[in-house]
Amino acid sequence: MVRTGVWLVGARGSVAVTTMVGTLAARAGLAEPVGCVTELPGLRDAAALPALNDLVFGGHDTSSVPLVKKAHALVGSGVLPAAIVEAVADELHRIEACLRPGTTSIEQVAADVAGFREQHRLDRVVVVNVSSTEPSSDGLPASSRYACGAFTAGCSYVDFTPSLGARHPEAMRLAVHHGLPYAGNDGKTGETLLKSVLAPMFAMRNLRVRSWSGTNLLGGGDGANLADPGANAVKVASKQRVLREILGYEPEGGTRIDYVPDIGDLKTAWDLITFSGFLGTRMRLEFTWHGCDSALAAPLVIDLARLTAAAHSRGISGPLTQLAFFFKDPIGVVPHALPDQWRLLCDWVSGWARETA
Amino acid sequence: MVRTGVWLVGARGSVAVTTMVGTLAARAGLAEPVGCVTELPGLRDAAALPALNDLVFGGHDTSSVPLVKKAHALVGSGVLPAAIVEAVADELHRIEACLRPGTTSIEQVAADVAGFREQHRLDRVVVVNVSSTEPSSDGLPASSRYACGAFTAGCSYVDFTPSLGARHPEAMRLAVHHGLPYAGNDGKTGETLLKSVLAPMFAMRNLRVRSWSGTNLLGGGDGANLADPGANAVKVASKQRVLREILGYEPEGGTRIDYVPDIGDLKTAWDLITFSGFLGTRMRLEFTWHGCDSALAAPLVIDLARLTAAAHSRGISGPLTQLAFFFKDPIGVVPHALPDQWRLLCDWVSGWARETA
Amino acid sequence: MVRTGVWLVGARGSVAVTTMVGTLAARAGLAEPVGCVTELPGLRDAAALPALNDLVFGGHDTSSVPLVKKAHALVGSGVLPAAIVEAVADELHRIEACLRPGTTSIEQVAADVAGFREQHRLDRVVVVNVSSTEPSSDGLPASSRYACGAFTAGCSYVDFTPSLGARHPEAMRLAVHHGLPYAGNDGKTGETLLKSVLAPMFAMRNLRVRSWSGTNLLGGGDGANLADPGANAVKVASKQRVLREILGYEPEGGTRIDYVPDIGDLKTAWDLITFSGFLGTRMRLEFTWHGCDSALAAPLVIDLARLTAAAHSRGISGPLTQLAFFFKDPIGVVPHALPDQWRLLCDWVSGWARETA
Amino acid sequence: MVRTGVWLVGARGSVAVTTMVGTLAARAGLAEPVGCVTELPGLRDAAALPALNDLVFGGHDTSSVPLVKKAHALVGSGVLPAAIVEAVADELHRIEACLRPGTTSIEQVAADVAGFREQHRLDRVVVVNVSSTEPSSDGLPASSRYACGAFTAGCSYVDFTPSLGARHPEAMRLAVHHGLPYAGNDGKTGETLLKSVLAPMFAMRNLRVRSWSGTNLLGGGDGANLADPGANAVKVASKQRVLREILGYEPEGGTRIDYVPDIGDLKTAWDLITFSGFLGTRMRLEFTWHGCDSALAAPLVIDLARLTAAAHSRGISGPLTQLAFFFKDPIGVVPHALPDQWRLLCDWVSGWARETA
Repeated sequence: MVRTGVWLVGARGSVAVTTMVGTLAARAGLAEPVGCVTELPGLRDAAALPALNDLVFGGHDTSSVPLVKKAHALVGSGVLPAAIVEAVADELHRIEACLRPGTTSIEQVAADVAGFREQHRLDRVVVVNVSSTEPSSDGLPASSRYACGAFTAGCSYVDFTPSLGARHPEAMRLAVHHGLPYAGNDGKTGETLLKSVLAPMFAMRNLRVRSWSGTNLLGGGDGANLADPGANAVKVASKQRVLREILGYEPEGGTRIDYVPDIGDLKTAWDLITFSGFLGTRMRLEFTWHGCDSALAAPLVIDLARLTAAAHSRGISGPLTQLAFFFKDPIGVVPHALPDQWRLLCDWVSGWARETA
Repeated sequence: MVRTGVWLVGARGSVAVTTMVGTLAARAGLAEPVGCVTELPGLRDAAALPALNDLVFGGHDTSSVPLVKKAHALVGSGVLPAAIVEAVADELHRIEACLRPGTTSIEQVAADVAGFREQHRLDRVVVVNVSSTEPSSDGLPASSRYACGAFTAGCSYVDFTPSLGARHPEAMRLAVHHGLPYAGNDGKTGETLLKSVLAPMFAMRNLRVRSWSGTNLLGGGDGANLADPGANAVKVASKQRVLREILGYEPEGGTRIDYVPDIGDLKTAWDLITFSGFLGTRMRLEFTWHGCDSALAAPLVIDLARLTAAAHSRGISGPLTQLAFFFKDPIGVVPHALPDQWRLLCDWVSGWARETA
Repeated sequence: MVRTGVWLVGARGSVAVTTMVGTLAARAGLAEPVGCVTELPGLRDAAALPALNDLVFGGHDTSSVPLVKKAHALVGSGVLPAAIVEAVADELHRIEACLRPGTTSIEQVAADVAGFREQHRLDRVVVVNVSSTEPSSDGLPASSRYACGAFTAGCSYVDFTPSLGARHPEAMRLAVHHGLPYAGNDGKTGETLLKSVLAPMFAMRNLRVRSWSGTNLLGGGDGANLADPGANAVKVASKQRVLREILGYEPEGGTRIDYVPDIGDLKTAWDLITFSGFLGTRMRLEFTWHGCDSALAAPLVIDLARLTAAAHSRGISGPLTQLAFFFKDPIGVVPHALPDQWRLLCDWVSGWARETA
Repeated sequence: MVRTGVWLVGARGSVAVTTMVGTLAARAGLAEPVGCVTELPGLRDAAALPALNDLVFGGHDTSSVPLVKKAHALVGSGVLPAAIVEAVADELHRIEACLRPGTTSIEQVAADVAGFREQHRLDRVVVVNVSSTEPSSDGLPASSRYACGAFTAGCSYVDFTPSLGARHPEAMRLAVHHGLPYAGNDGKTGETLLKSVLAPMFAMRNLRVRSWSGTNLLGGGDGANLADPGANAVKVASKQRVLREILGYEPEGGTRIDYVPDIGDLKTAWDLITFSGFLGTRMRLEFTWHGCDSALAAPLVIDLARLTAAAHSRGISGPLTQLAFFFKDPIGVVPHALPDQWRLLCDWVSGWARETA
């Protein structure tokens, strides 16, 4: 039995707590792993991924709100069912003991993660950043400090946020030096997910996209944070890239993110796409997406932890471009259309199965 | 130079006239072939398809409205630009001479198509059904009579409608007997096109689609015809299949088609999709599609004519399952997700290029 | 102190139970009477309406599901908060004793209602039909039997459904004979509420509405019932009338009701309105309404009970056309635009205040 | 016969040219005055308003694009029908002679307007500002200079834009001094029009609006101008006021204006309204408005010119608060709900009819 640690940076946030509660619930047979891509027949059977049963949670957070209290708050906002939180409360208390206060010291990060690995006799640990988006800054940003700490401790690193993380030259250098894999950035859970299937549709049909305008209304913790113009700008740039990459040109229009506390965790995105067809006929597509970010992100965090741990165990190092499927702003020269990303992922994992066989 | 005939059943209808006007305009350099899939770099260069310049139009219709008059009506409803119709009016007059009255006699169909081929010294002719959807009936339906006529005359057949067409056993028998290819059914131009990219997104992300309800409001000729409950039922069944095929289960909800004359040629489809994610969280996606059916269908008619003619010229016979990309209700055991259909098409045509090289 | 009985036909249904729970919660100070029109300053102060504290509930139902069980089901579907149901459970048990089995006997209805009035020493009772929509039928329909029973017992009657109710000649005769007031039909809680403010906007601006098409997707008890074509037809006719009455002409398009169980109590209505302005320019408005029918209906049931009881106490008899504000298909020659209905209601109640002063 | 001048500031813009073309077309019997409120039976018959036949156009503009050229551009963008522009081209040429270059000199404005009045022997002139929204500035803004010029020349003034116009103290002083009426500001043609009927609906039903977020996508001249942050801020503030005024509180959320050239004159507004009902149940309404601003504004410009001229002829001076119906940001202490504004307007005009009788 291979035991894998999942160290969450931002461990007391909505995504982290939903990830823990969901894993515990699935393990206890209280919920199906809906939304987990690695539970689809094709991927589940193809490669030796860590089992849900063998994931062990720890993490950093600058907040000190108890996990159970946060879980109850997520019941109140409709993200988690009360009965499930009740059923896993004891295990959340046990995870509580594995959390450490947030820090800006790379050494402390490394020490905390290494200590966790030893205490729980883990084969390896994946550090996953699910903290709030940070504004762009001049020095070494917090996300990159966590990445450096992870690599220093011999751990892989996944960045689920648009922050700089492992893309900082110093972090990349450490990853190469220690021969460790990393993945990112910015989990693709809503509007961009739709863009990555709709833009290829227009491209495959040779239709001309004239404008693509998006508005995102969100409450909850991430919304408040994105009200900061710096963080907003980083996020929006990450959201724009996909169209240019898929279509080969940039349509008019832009993306807005607005903070509306009342919306809570159920984000609303509205997009208007104008396009022209044969002989210039003007047409349009509008969509409204009401998605719960935490519920969409949590199963992907589990997927990324399992896949990155498996890559690490196979000695793969450097940027995991094959995980582009999961990200708004994937590292490397990779496809941006979801179906192409899916094929890349499946081929990669199938290759492992063949090697193993 | 290989000259290819395109014989349109329903030659005076909106789709047929838009196809003719668009081809003439592109040929004259007055319009770009937007919406033509065979003009995308990958496909255009991969195989020896008939050039736009080498397509010759003819067809049947029960109506006798002159083509130019119909083209002007399409200007009025915003489908065709006035200047372009003006520019190609002379050539429309010339096509007028190649049209024959609709008939229920298989022999007459065969004679008309064969006569067209001889008169214009065409290498081959593709018969494409773009007439109105016919209600289901007990005898040999009109669409199948046209298919039988096409095969009898040694021509390939494409059915762009949900009508029975070449799927009738008698028609299939003739296609086999004469060694001819055929394709269908029901051009995928709107709501179903979106289903074929959105349903795979939910499937790839392991999200559970709970309900998918669609409403289609359409005016124009096809709308009036679909107000007939029989034709409506045929069309709706064709629209439902895609979800079951892609998801592996059938969500709740159904599809409605309503005739609203004022909507004209700009069809509006509204779909509501409810789905659940991790731990059962309820989410939803809504979209509204305002598409001009004729402008979306016409370039695909050109694509199908070129690809079917090329297949015919290579001696390929039977159902062209590789053309599933174009159809709501494709013949044969084929993928229903658009990206898979796209790959099937590209691989097929690339194979030709390799053979030729 | 004047004690008023509220006798609910369909007392174990969603609307009735939400009405009871909400009244009990407001009375206990656990919830504000949001959605209660009679709690707006203008109306609340203008006339001597029965206080929430003085309403006593009873009713008929063919079902025998306990009220508390139904209330818990409404917690599950997100209509009622768990804490509030908990807090009023004892009082629901007490109301349980006042419910009687549904019956088709007018005499039994009258006896049940009269018995309730005597047992609780009520000054008067308002019978309110909140049962499922009944299909149109040839004989005296159930709703009219309840109306006749109410009148026979000397009670007023309100029909919150599109059923025939007090509009049957026999029921009207009894109302006149006993000098009793009645009101109806079909509570205006969603799509039609919007029609009654949007259609006047187009009219006041002299814009031409060309088509108005609506789709209603609903789960829950009423949805299942409306899947019956007969009931559906009655409901749809009631929904269409408002446009003709306000605009003075009937635009193209119609209204659909589809049953989608997964939607549950949160109904979704989508409407597309096409209109033209100056020089014929085509424009459009689309809206999507996600409303919880029970939560919208319950406070209006309280309003109607209070206002009808007050009218009864003032000796007013016959159809209460001044209550048109509350209904999709109001009885009598009345305005259909919501602002006009509002003015009619306010003027009526202000008149009472002046009389009393 | 009373001849009335309509002097348009921004006379070569979309709204002005649509106003001229539409008036000429209606006069010639080529189009019905759809969208003209003063053509509704109630208003048309109630008061002696200037007839369409007796309106004479002139105006200022900093641009020198010929009217006919601008009209053809509006044909291209779908605002005006080609046949109508053709039919009125000669008359547009005649109006051309009445246009003067834009100026910042109050004296020049007054001289130009007075000259126009004398040359055409007009009984009076209404100056209507339909130029682009100006950014807020420190000195006397251009719009106020035009207002001052109008008053100096003894003319009334209407501001259809959110610019300061007659609300500047110096302009107000002149209006009082010369005993002249004025009206404004910011024609209510789209999103705010809907707010002014939907917000009262929530208020009348005692439902709690929690958030109201709006996004406006617009191309065309006004869109380009609003990309300027200063002008955008002025416009947005004008759009927000209506909710606070009608609801008595300010919901969360804000309004965005984005410039998307491809959208052209057909503006798209998307609004999401979240609200709660009985027992706190969360509900939502979304709407999308696709409106052509010029086609909606032009008939209101005619209405305002007729009504202001009639007020002037009756010796009414100062702010015409009774015209609040037409404005996003009406001057004075006035109702903001459209039905109340409508009643105010109708009562005012009916009063004239009674006086005259």
